Amino acid sequence: MITRKQQEQARRRAAEMIRAAGIHITDIEANRTEVVDFGLSRLEHEGVQVLTLVQTERISVKVLALFPNQTEPEHWHPPVGSDPGKEETVRVISGTLYFYVPGENTFKEGFLVKGKEHCYTMRHELVMRPGDQVTLAPGVRHWFQAREEGVVMYSFSTIARDVMDRFTDKDIVRTTRVADDK
Amino acid sequence: MITRKQQEQARRRAAEMIRAAGIHITDIEANRTEVVDFGLSRLEHEGVQVLTLVQTERISVKVLALFPNQTEPEHWHPPVGSDPGKEETVRVISGTLYFYVPGENTFKEGFLVKGKEHCYTMRHELVMRPGDQVTLAPGVRHWFQAREEGVVMYSFSTIARDVMDRFTDKDIVRTTRVADDK
Repeated sequence: MITRKQQEQARRRAAEMIRAAGIHITDIEANRTEVVDFGLSRLEHEGVQVLTLVQTERISVKVLALFPNQTEPEHWHPPVGSDPGKEETVRVISGTLYFYVPGENTFKEGFLVKGKEHCYTMRHELVMRPGDQVTLAPGVRHWFQAREEGVVMYSFSTIARDVMDRFTDKDIVRTTRVADDK
Repeated sequence: MITRKQQEQARRRAAEMIRAAGIHITDIEANRTEVVDFGLSRLEHEGVQVLTLVQTERISVKVLALFPNQTEPEHWHPPVGSDPGKEETVRVISGTLYFYVPGENTFKEGFLVKGKEHCYTMRHELVMRPGDQVTLAPGVRHWFQAREEGVVMYSFSTIARDVMDRFTDKDIVRTTRVADDK
């Protein structure tokens, strides 16, 4: 759960990062940026800010902003009906992205979220800088992280059905609840 | 047909425009930017520069650069086998884009390419600025144009099969021939 105030602050901060990264977004887009805490109520540690630019029945384009030291929890995109699952290409716009996928353990630059080490099982590390990109087939487990400077990145994909995403951490709920401030 | 020299110059110019628009691209990407003259041998008038960032069996992401007063000829994306045809979202990054689609004739700000007026039949005008976007269903005829300042734009789409595109101008050949310089 996040508060309305947290949501507004995170949206403002994300919009500033996205614009500083050189992406022209409208105020309407800035104001509909999704602030996602994955139901864990510790947005600064595990969370992501998502601006969906395109969402049709066939494709999805999102801009993701990660605050410094924020981690997007490990997840994968399962098949849904006749869809084999979301295929996703991630491309870094600004900052350095620490991205984890299946493969040899090369874990070095990133950090595991304290108390949640068992929920981050992929340890093959990609250190990605602006202009770097990686394409993930459906079903591939992955998680990613920003360090000091934060990250702005694109996610280009087939249709996104975020609520169908699967997470290693069983405490996660994809839909963020927003509480009115007292 | 274009010459090798024309191709190199157009690539360099397109890369400069793309970078000036705030998009970080690698030198490898800059050097594989496609310079398309549509077989008309008048690149400055009818043509486009295309950098494909993502091309999978399911989606495609391209950055398009239009030089000042360059026009991309009228075309549409037909069904191919089980694919209903390319669905495309265009989003302007820099410059003002004059975009033409089916609908009421509101033609005002753009110009018709001289001697080719009959090949530009869509006259419903969208004047698009940075952050503006439009989604086209498969099969929708469209063309677009830059004026004084040139345009850099994204094309987010389902799988692109450019050689299957259909054009109003029957003289068009989608594959550009590049001649070695004498």
